Amino acid sequence: MSHNTFGHLFRVTTWGESHGPAIGCVVDGCPPLIPLTEADLQPWLDLRKPGGSRFVTQRQETDVARILSGVFDDGAGPVTTGTPIAIHIDNVDARSKDYGEIARAYRPGHADLTYQTKYGVRDHRGGGRSSARETASRVAAGAVARRVLGDGVTIRAGVVQLGPHRIAPEAVDFSAVYDNPLFAASAEVVPAWEEYLDGVRKAGSSIGAVVALEVTGVPAGWGSPLYAKLDAELAAAMMSINAVKGVEIGAGFGAAELSGEENADEMRLGEDGQILFGSNNAGGILGGISTGQPLTARVAFKPTSSILTPRQTVTRDGTEADLRTKGRHDPCVALRGVPVVEAMAACVLADALLRHRAQIG
Amino acid sequence: MSHNTFGHLFRVTTWGESHGPAIGCVVDGCPPLIPLTEADLQPWLDLRKPGGSRFVTQRQETDVARILSGVFDDGAGPVTTGTPIAIHIDNVDARSKDYGEIARAYRPGHADLTYQTKYGVRDHRGGGRSSARETASRVAAGAVARRVLGDGVTIRAGVVQLGPHRIAPEAVDFSAVYDNPLFAASAEVVPAWEEYLDGVRKAGSSIGAVVALEVTGVPAGWGSPLYAKLDAELAAAMMSINAVKGVEIGAGFGAAELSGEENADEMRLGEDGQILFGSNNAGGILGGISTGQPLTARVAFKPTSSILTPRQTVTRDGTEADLRTKGRHDPCVALRGVPVVEAMAACVLADALLRHRAQIG
Amino acid sequence: MSHNTFGHLFRVTTWGESHGPAIGCVVDGCPPLIPLTEADLQPWLDLRKPGGSRFVTQRQETDVARILSGVFDDGAGPVTTGTPIAIHIDNVDARSKDYGEIARAYRPGHADLTYQTKYGVRDHRGGGRSSARETASRVAAGAVARRVLGDGVTIRAGVVQLGPHRIAPEAVDFSAVYDNPLFAASAEVVPAWEEYLDGVRKAGSSIGAVVALEVTGVPAGWGSPLYAKLDAELAAAMMSINAVKGVEIGAGFGAAELSGEENADEMRLGEDGQILFGSNNAGGILGGISTGQPLTARVAFKPTSSILTPRQTVTRDGTEADLRTKGRHDPCVALRGVPVVEAMAACVLADALLRHRAQIG
Amino acid sequence: MSHNTFGHLFRVTTWGESHGPAIGCVVDGCPPLIPLTEADLQPWLDLRKPGGSRFVTQRQETDVARILSGVFDDGAGPVTTGTPIAIHIDNVDARSKDYGEIARAYRPGHADLTYQTKYGVRDHRGGGRSSARETASRVAAGAVARRVLGDGVTIRAGVVQLGPHRIAPEAVDFSAVYDNPLFAASAEVVPAWEEYLDGVRKAGSSIGAVVALEVTGVPAGWGSPLYAKLDAELAAAMMSINAVKGVEIGAGFGAAELSGEENADEMRLGEDGQILFGSNNAGGILGGISTGQPLTARVAFKPTSSILTPRQTVTRDGTEADLRTKGRHDPCVALRGVPVVEAMAACVLADALLRHRAQIG
Repeated sequence: MSHNTFGHLFRVTTWGESHGPAIGCVVDGCPPLIPLTEADLQPWLDLRKPGGSRFVTQRQETDVARILSGVFDDGAGPVTTGTPIAIHIDNVDARSKDYGEIARAYRPGHADLTYQTKYGVRDHRGGGRSSARETASRVAAGAVARRVLGDGVTIRAGVVQLGPHRIAPEAVDFSAVYDNPLFAASAEVVPAWEEYLDGVRKAGSSIGAVVALEVTGVPAGWGSPLYAKLDAELAAAMMSINAVKGVEIGAGFGAAELSGEENADEMRLGEDGQILFGSNNAGGILGGISTGQPLTARVAFKPTSSILTPRQTVTRDGTEADLRTKGRHDPCVALRGVPVVEAMAACVLADALLRHRAQIG
Repeated sequence: MSHNTFGHLFRVTTWGESHGPAIGCVVDGCPPLIPLTEADLQPWLDLRKPGGSRFVTQRQETDVARILSGVFDDGAGPVTTGTPIAIHIDNVDARSKDYGEIARAYRPGHADLTYQTKYGVRDHRGGGRSSARETASRVAAGAVARRVLGDGVTIRAGVVQLGPHRIAPEAVDFSAVYDNPLFAASAEVVPAWEEYLDGVRKAGSSIGAVVALEVTGVPAGWGSPLYAKLDAELAAAMMSINAVKGVEIGAGFGAAELSGEENADEMRLGEDGQILFGSNNAGGILGGISTGQPLTARVAFKPTSSILTPRQTVTRDGTEADLRTKGRHDPCVALRGVPVVEAMAACVLADALLRHRAQIG
Repeated sequence: MSHNTFGHLFRVTTWGESHGPAIGCVVDGCPPLIPLTEADLQPWLDLRKPGGSRFVTQRQETDVARILSGVFDDGAGPVTTGTPIAIHIDNVDARSKDYGEIARAYRPGHADLTYQTKYGVRDHRGGGRSSARETASRVAAGAVARRVLGDGVTIRAGVVQLGPHRIAPEAVDFSAVYDNPLFAASAEVVPAWEEYLDGVRKAGSSIGAVVALEVTGVPAGWGSPLYAKLDAELAAAMMSINAVKGVEIGAGFGAAELSGEENADEMRLGEDGQILFGSNNAGGILGGISTGQPLTARVAFKPTSSILTPRQTVTRDGTEADLRTKGRHDPCVALRGVPVVEAMAACVLADALLRHRAQIG
Repeated sequence: MSHNTFGHLFRVTTWGESHGPAIGCVVDGCPPLIPLTEADLQPWLDLRKPGGSRFVTQRQETDVARILSGVFDDGAGPVTTGTPIAIHIDNVDARSKDYGEIARAYRPGHADLTYQTKYGVRDHRGGGRSSARETASRVAAGAVARRVLGDGVTIRAGVVQLGPHRIAPEAVDFSAVYDNPLFAASAEVVPAWEEYLDGVRKAGSSIGAVVALEVTGVPAGWGSPLYAKLDAELAAAMMSINAVKGVEIGAGFGAAELSGEENADEMRLGEDGQILFGSNNAGGILGGISTGQPLTARVAFKPTSSILTPRQTVTRDGTEADLRTKGRHDPCVALRGVPVVEAMAACVLADALLRHRAQIG
């Protein structure tokens, strides 16, 4: 069981390796009659696309997404038909020669070792299937999911911690994210962060980061009470992104230090009878089901494994080696992870919407 | 889609409410010919059982698990037959009168609100389906999963942070966990923690905590590379436990502050050719697949929502109320969460074992 | 993967062996707020129950179904809560001594051989998991499914062929089915069929049969176009019933002899604009999706494998044997298959309803 | 839930419309290290390809399958890597103008009506997603499945009934199938069948047929005992093929006329201890699990719905119409169904192999 599909009713199947001819995905279960064209996908892909600044890999990919099925124009403009939507993205700048040595030696911190151990073979070119390139398919699927959710649901993410540098919770401003090359959730930190990340980059090093997520407009009632709690589905979706090693919902690890009195999100009634919460430690989810408050989560990314400093490793032939990874890499893989976090949230929520509708009507 | 089943090949379906006649689970997909009796389940259930100390709810449940199917003795002792194993646990101490008020008012921080909103009805008695009582079924299933994994895999968890009090990573000692009523992963902290938690308990308050998990003996190669990464499956399993709001694998959120050089778990070869790692920031998982190192994770629990201090809330009739929750509760729900964390890890790993065997042979 | 769960959103998990303490099922995904009590289940179970006439096994089971979870009375009568519904049926008349020899020798035509070969062990008592007793769980689940479907959908089945004796299509009368001990879909054939089946029974023999199914009230649009065509789901559900070896939808195998002109179910418009079909060769399903016409299917049952005439077989110890099966058996297992066919159709359709609602709204 | 994926561990997701730019599939869960190239797929696609004789549609498609991922040559030739295998087939001869009228009027017996009713829109060009063109993806996936099964398993199918003309069971010769343009399982019937089908074709009519399937080399023990019986999975797979309306396993509907004595496949031991069966009424499956005998099934196809004779129908605008379908069609869609039946059997069995290995080891 290889699990290249995710989602229950809104289902995404992806395929493709970093240096193969193309990558892509099939989105199945999308409701019909939703207006959708390639122009709806491209802006999201452009946000994630490599080569956009000195802070991301210099690989030059156009990331042009073509829709090969599932959309039809019967006179009133292209709409989804309820059949699977195949999305195809050509790989145009795959320089496999850069990766000669990693065919043999395992990058510490990378999936080279485990793919080879599990499968006995791996497409080592550019990381093959484990490359961040795969996330383009997620972003394309996420763009479809956003159309399913409609304009009422707003999904935003941004970098709130870059290595040791943090944005205070009260200073987080998601509107700044796509206006700076660091995807930082605050315009103010950008100059200092740029200087910091330039240092990391020039040293051939890399650094971890934390991405915050906020989703507004999710009505109360989505999600499932136990083994597919909305927290659990979000956590799994985020943890499935390459380099992610931690996820917290609402107060998250901070809740471990709270008393019951502090943690309780007290409720009062608004003028029109809606529930007003005094706080949102729950991150918008209680018992696995949305409360109507904003969904909030934080996602920890480890640093890129490909660095210039030699690291001790072993080879698949059973010898020791010291490996430095040349080639084109992101000094902080979390940056381009921001649109991916958003896309995965969109897919989880589109799926939750459909499942809610199924059981509750 | 209600998702009361988890797992792909080793599948667990649970049922039952806190104050109904019984709870239970059906374990499907278990390999045949594994020796199994009720005596294999009971010790694990006894660890989680309420009423064991002043630090857990005073509800008195025997938590006797009966196996109703899937095991047969054909002369050589009872073994699994490959058919579904139904496990049945009677509820014997359900005092529904304690819960009169919460039929009407929603406990802040609890699932009362969201169940009622989603379903339009809920079994409010003792929290119904959202009660921690449900975790007994998980523990029973986990006991079966341990038999599938065999003695080579050792799963251990323990409380490493109780509110503001932490056990230093180097002081964590899982062997102490079941010898103290706090499930603390260190004997040394117990006196101080007991005093602290007594204060919380007597104040009718509650507190959050962090549970650490360590699994040794998992061979390299288990797990799936993308949407069901072993990290993602563990995260989802842990997040599905009531009150959990954060999960991290290996260095977790700490990895956000590491450089690529620091994060890389360097490798050397041992005398017999096996890989020796210099560190384990990956928590035993790279690219979603086990490395052969110990799996390590940390799980954040929020404080119990049921507290004596009145909290502002609303009722399902649309009025405001101040609610204090009487009845029997755990001052720190994470304590009895320790065997549940272990059980969920066991189920995830038994499932990973079967899936690995399917694809790789 | 052991597959003791069926359905996608309306999901049924069953457990239990013929001579174990009990059997049962867990119905998950049921919408909330549907009135449901044990009295809604029992009439359907009583139809299937053994011991009712000389034409079915003389095992005396009360088949009393208890609901252990998922239903709650909040003042307006018991309703489903959206949580899993556990149904429990005790086995009260299990005489395992009757089955001594089949622990050793495989009944030809029975699952004894294949269970033992696959699993290396089997609960041979009364056929264990492969016993027709398991179908009681299906019938209980089907009763829940009928409540989900509501009164607009009518599901009826009946025996239309008993060995060589057939009821002409135009003579089929489903209203007769539960008024005769043969579950025959025609009152007229009953005397002759009783005489025939008495002969089979007294000879210790058995005979196959065909059960017809008709479902009215399914609106146009349910089902999925390709790999879960409504035809395919019905076929799988029927084929999953013990002893079934053939399924056809609408004209079925007869369609192989039709020309395109004959097969086309021509359409005209009724007075209020609804579509009127001139025929129903499609059995109410085109492209896997319901047309609004009645769903029609036919299901072939093989004869009961347990017969008194000695048959050549082998034993699990690797010797040859001549086996005659004593004990209590149905001379025609298809008879009690009638409520099971109905129940499986109900489950498939409740599942189709939920999935339709999910994607289409 | 749209169900464009089938299989549990060997999973196939397909996409594409008849007159879109391309069709294709993603095969997930394939074990690694299996030699695989496009040359392994093409011969099977060529068998199904249109335009090959006057008895199939005159649409000219090259059906060239390209593998875009999941296969890697690390020096010893291309092998599967355990990652998803994306297969892409361009549509080169899509003449949408032929289909103008069916955008408006529903072909009786075709999925036009139900797609439009369910989704409110459909890609009507060439039948869109419901076109037999989709089966090319199945055949490509089936070619991969055959590699998973290996040479020990032989899957063969052929037409055994063409309208009223039947091949006697004892005359069935699968080796003749791909040597005649009718895919007939007997060389002798070909001249008479050609003359018959020429008549049908020239009349602009169509006819139904029955395809028989035989699989040898499946070891005893594959399959699951209840809801995913091997019979049920084969039945669902076959019923999911466009135009199929009936499936029977082994004696099938004939078993309804057998006595228990006749139906029992008696067993004796061979010289080396293997089980020898005296007959195969079970079609190689007992209790849902393979016996080691050949798997045998029969599949009924209805006639092609697109015919020249005008049929009464209605339009999506709510008017009545008389429709004759011009364009290019198969006079007997079952013919090209033969490689599809084989492919679906291959996929079901590859999936059964992996699942068996998972649970049993």
